[in-house]
Amino acid sequence: MKPIGSIQTDHKTLDNMPIQPRGAGNATGRIVLQREYQDGLLDLEGFSHIYLIYLFHLSDGYSFRVRPFMDDNSHGVFATRAPKRPNPIGLSIVRLLSIRDNVIEFEGADMANGTPLLDIKPYIEQFDKVNHATSGWLKASDRAIMQARSDNRFK
Amino acid sequence: MKPIGSIQTDHKTLDNMPIQPRGAGNATGRIVLQREYQDGLLDLEGFSHIYLIYLFHLSDGYSFRVRPFMDDNSHGVFATRAPKRPNPIGLSIVRLLSIRDNVIEFEGADMANGTPLLDIKPYIEQFDKVNHATSGWLKASDRAIMQARSDNRFK
Repeated sequence: MKPIGSIQTDHKTLDNMPIQPRGAGNATGRIVLQREYQDGLLDLEGFSHIYLIYLFHLSDGYSFRVRPFMDDNSHGVFATRAPKRPNPIGLSIVRLLSIRDNVIEFEGADMANGTPLLDIKPYIEQFDKVNHATSGWLKASDRAIMQARSDNRFK
Repeated sequence: MKPIGSIQTDHKTLDNMPIQPRGAGNATGRIVLQREYQDGLLDLEGFSHIYLIYLFHLSDGYSFRVRPFMDDNSHGVFATRAPKRPNPIGLSIVRLLSIRDNVIEFEGADMANGTPLLDIKPYIEQFDKVNHATSGWLKASDRAIMQARSDNRFK
């Protein structure tokens, strides 16, 4: 595993960040792909949304039980999207805005500035859209998600 | 990065596999998590769908341009879900059936038997549901996706 590029955002610290792309709203971010991988972007611009798979590089270690931002109770780490995980892999679905050479602009920037990028995959509705999902402990309203901001608990 | 467990499926070779969980239909798979991580599963059973993040362990190397199973044209590797990627990370959204101790049964098994698992995350509709996505080059019908099967091109 080695970074294929870096994600630039306005989030310089882990504090006060949006907790998901949906909470990031129209905050934009920029992927600077290493030039050697640029050819792999061919035809990506036809997709409205992409998965970004990246490293939670500011998190250190992990716990089996975590208290996520959206709940006062603790849950198993695999039942949350918290960053302190056995393999610190982050996953965000963001809206693709533009691709120019090796630079990708996107909307929904919920990751820290300087995040190392591992992979980009197209969001494909026919593969990925889930109907009638149930979401366990998470009962938050859309409004609460939009307004939630991180603190330093996952540093 | 180290595996947290292993995924058991009926797909013993890369040939003739479903190409996505949607194509796998009700084919079930089983995750055997290493015992040391079992506590991280607390409350996961409340979610109907989970992301599995894993290694494409049978793929070797990568190309920048690939011809995916669902198209006769080649595309940049990051505009496809093909396994031969710079970082060989796979992503599947599967339906959770049961959790018993360190064993998780799921539906939608589209990965090879013995796949090393890196992470499990809950699918959270409020975070992950995308409305009005456009899917670039992929024009296949649901029927075509259900019927598509892999060949050995990504070994």
